[in-house]
Amino acid sequence: MAEEVILLDFWPSPFGMRAKIALREKGVHFDLREEELLSNKSPLLLQMNPVHKKIPVLIHNGKPVCESHIIIQYIDETWGPESPLLPSEPHERARARFWADYVDKKIFPAGRTAWRSTGEAQEAAKKEYIEGLKMLEGELGDTAYFGGERFGFLDVSLIPFYSWFYAVETLTGCSFEEECPKLVGWAKRCMQRESVARSLPDQHKVYDFMSEVRKKVQAQ
Amino acid sequence: MAEEVILLDFWPSPFGMRAKIALREKGVHFDLREEELLSNKSPLLLQMNPVHKKIPVLIHNGKPVCESHIIIQYIDETWGPESPLLPSEPHERARARFWADYVDKKIFPAGRTAWRSTGEAQEAAKKEYIEGLKMLEGELGDTAYFGGERFGFLDVSLIPFYSWFYAVETLTGCSFEEECPKLVGWAKRCMQRESVARSLPDQHKVYDFMSEVRKKVQAQ
Repeated sequence: MAEEVILLDFWPSPFGMRAKIALREKGVHFDLREEELLSNKSPLLLQMNPVHKKIPVLIHNGKPVCESHIIIQYIDETWGPESPLLPSEPHERARARFWADYVDKKIFPAGRTAWRSTGEAQEAAKKEYIEGLKMLEGELGDTAYFGGERFGFLDVSLIPFYSWFYAVETLTGCSFEEECPKLVGWAKRCMQRESVARSLPDQHKVYDFMSEVRKKVQAQ
Repeated sequence: MAEEVILLDFWPSPFGMRAKIALREKGVHFDLREEELLSNKSPLLLQMNPVHKKIPVLIHNGKPVCESHIIIQYIDETWGPESPLLPSEPHERARARFWADYVDKKIFPAGRTAWRSTGEAQEAAKKEYIEGLKMLEGELGDTAYFGGERFGFLDVSLIPFYSWFYAVETLTGCSFEEECPKLVGWAKRCMQRESVARSLPDQHKVYDFMSEVRKKVQAQ
C-alpha cells in the first residue's frame, strides 16, 4: 500500500519545524500543507485536531498525530529504525525527554514574551530566555549534538528556535553569540544538515512576521 | 548488583501518585521519601531536580528521572516488559501520550483553579474541568480501561485525580457521578487494583489538605 503522509503546518512555528526536520531525517516523503493560522483554519485541521485546533498535525494514512514531541516520537517509532532519534538506553531517553519538555515549558514562553512585550516585562523575559539557553548550553557540554555524536530528539526539539534568534536579538537588544557562543556553534553545526536547513525559514522573514505580530499585540 | 530505587514524593500530588502506581504495577520495591514541599525542600530534592525543584523524582541507582510522564515511561522501559503500560503500536502510543498531555495541560490546571478560587473564576474553571473530563469519558468509550482491556499509561496518568474528586465536589458544588458516570465507573474499577488503591490517599484527607491551602490562598 502506498503511504499517505500529510503535514499541516504554519511556516514560522518552531513546533511545525520539528515535525519537518524529523520527517526529513528519516527520509519520509510528505505532502506539506500550509495553514493560515492567523485568519481561518482549514476544515481538515479542525477535523484532525478538534481538541487543540493547532498545527502541527501529522496525518499518516488518514490517522492524525498531534503535539510536536509526540509527532517526533511517532516518526521515530514508525520509520528508519536504523537511524533513531531517541537514544536506546532508558535513562538517556528520559534525559532527552526532560530537556525537550524544558524547551516547551521555559524556552518557548520566555522567548515569546520577550519579542512581543516592552519595558520591564521584556527585560525579565529576555533574562529568563538567556538563562534557559545557558542551562541548555551546559547540558550540551563539549559534544557535537545533544545526542552526543548523533543528531537526536533534543536537537530536533531545540534547533527550530535558532530561526527566531535574529528577530529576538533585534527586537530585544541582545547577542546570543556573546551570551551562549557554544550553543550558537551547535546551531550552525545543525544548519549544515539538509533536514534542518530545508525546514527552518529565513531569519529575516521571521523578523518581518514577528514585527507585524508585535505591532498588532501592542496596539491592543 | 542490588538495585536502589528511591521516590521523592509529596502525598497529595497526583504526579507523585502516578510514579507510585507505575512502580507498583511493575512490582518494583522502592524507598518512598516524603518531602515537606510547603515548607522546606530536602537537599536531596534540590540536588536531584535542580531545574524544577519539584517532586516526583525517581532516583534509580543514583540517577534521577524527573517529570511524572517521563518517569512512567522510564519505568515502563526499565522493568516488566511482559506487562507494558504503553501500547506497542505507534499510533496507539501517540494517542495515549496525547491524552496524558491533555490531562496535564487542561485537567490539572482547571481543577486546581476550581478548588482554590471563588465566584466567577471558580464557575469558569469548574465548567472547563467538567468539559475536560467529558472529553476523556468520550475517549474511554465502553472499554474497561483507556488501554482497552489492559490498564495502561493514560489510566496511570488520570486516575490520581480521582482522589481529588470529593474535595473538588465539596468545594465547588458539583457531582462527577452525575456529570460523567462512565468515568466514575472507570475510576472505581481502577481502585480495585492494588497498585492504585495503595497509591491514592484518602479523599477526606485530601479535602482537609485542600481546605487549608484554599484558606491560605484566599487570605493572600
